[in-house]
Amino acid sequence: MRAYFDQQLDLLKDEMVYMGGLCEDAIQLTVDALLNGDIKRAKTINNMMSQISQQERSIENICLKLLMQQQPVARDLRTISAALKMVTDMERIGIQACEIAEIISVGNIEQATDKVDFQKISDAVSNMVHMSLQAFGDKDMELANEVLKYDDVVDNLFCDIRGDLIGRLKSGSNEAEYLMDMMMIDKYFERIGDHAVNIAKWVNFSITGEIEIVE
Amino acid sequence: MRAYFDQQLDLLKDEMVYMGGLCEDAIQLTVDALLNGDIKRAKTINNMMSQISQQERSIENICLKLLMQQQPVARDLRTISAALKMVTDMERIGIQACEIAEIISVGNIEQATDKVDFQKISDAVSNMVHMSLQAFGDKDMELANEVLKYDDVVDNLFCDIRGDLIGRLKSGSNEAEYLMDMMMIDKYFERIGDHAVNIAKWVNFSITGEIEIVE
Repeated sequence: MRAYFDQQLDLLKDEMVYMGGLCEDAIQLTVDALLNGDIKRAKTINNMMSQISQQERSIENICLKLLMQQQPVARDLRTISAALKMVTDMERIGIQACEIAEIISVGNIEQATDKVDFQKISDAVSNMVHMSLQAFGDKDMELANEVLKYDDVVDNLFCDIRGDLIGRLKSGSNEAEYLMDMMMIDKYFERIGDHAVNIAKWVNFSITGEIEIVE
Repeated sequence: MRAYFDQQLDLLKDEMVYMGGLCEDAIQLTVDALLNGDIKRAKTINNMMSQISQQERSIENICLKLLMQQQPVARDLRTISAALKMVTDMERIGIQACEIAEIISVGNIEQATDKVDFQKISDAVSNMVHMSLQAFGDKDMELANEVLKYDDVVDNLFCDIRGDLIGRLKSGSNEAEYLMDMMMIDKYFERIGDHAVNIAKWVNFSITGEIEIVE
């Protein structure tokens, strides 16, 4: 019985790692499309998103089956319920990536004369997502706490870009629509960072049993 | 055993209704503060948000206990797993309300000469949230489907406000920061509508067993 349970827990972990990979791919695709203005690439995100949603469903099923058939306790229970909540944050990461891709697809970016630089913030949130999922796979609290520290970095990068955008608008830029879109993209990156923070908090919960999700 | 299970299911329903009430209060508080520029009121949202998060945790606990101790099947299982997912959307509604309140708290709105009108979109999303939670309480698929139809209404209202904001920016408004904030508030209202749609979809899932969450 325990052997089967452990095997199912390993399966859960593998599926989480796989979903994490999909989320990282979605961010990478979006970032590439954004930094290179690759509209064609941006439009392929929807296939990726349906895979992510599908993966969320199948992980939910694994978790619910484990909870119902195996009645786990203590740390196993925490791992499963953490996974059940983490997939929601992982799916939201995919959704934020889709929102960015959608803005790119419209194509205003192509015409922009002075492109906004999202390199730093996109690197930062990509790292946060990668680290938070790594921390889950390795049950690594230290790494999870690294992600929490990163949150301020992303918030500062978000504010820098926001300030730049507002400055341009005040100076009477004739690219109001483009700058408004860039404001949204800035926010979506910040949100991806928030979801990575939630994942890291669920990792800590799965290890310590303590949780404090504040966004 | 069944009697205890039914009693726990009733408790779950009551707790969901209570959390729904908190979410509606949070939106109402935010809308009042926004429409009347009541900064003092906006600052009280954080207490409400911590209640919402607390309520999410306690509902998660009820759901997990029911899943583990009672091993429900079919419709009961769907109701419980739907509740487990719905609370995440409900908490996110609270978070969006907080984001709006935070912008109000900064106080740029007070100085705005020509305020943006959020009455229609805030009424629309408030209705969506109310209907979706009502639909869960009454297992009312018809009402849940009403919420799904409402989604286009909110998307159109979102686009109208966005167009207005971009128009103002293009005409060289000297209130770029205010208008950027209003763009974010517009988006937050749209997201609240999306979460109400998710809740409605989970209601349908709890009744039919079919789910399709696309945001």
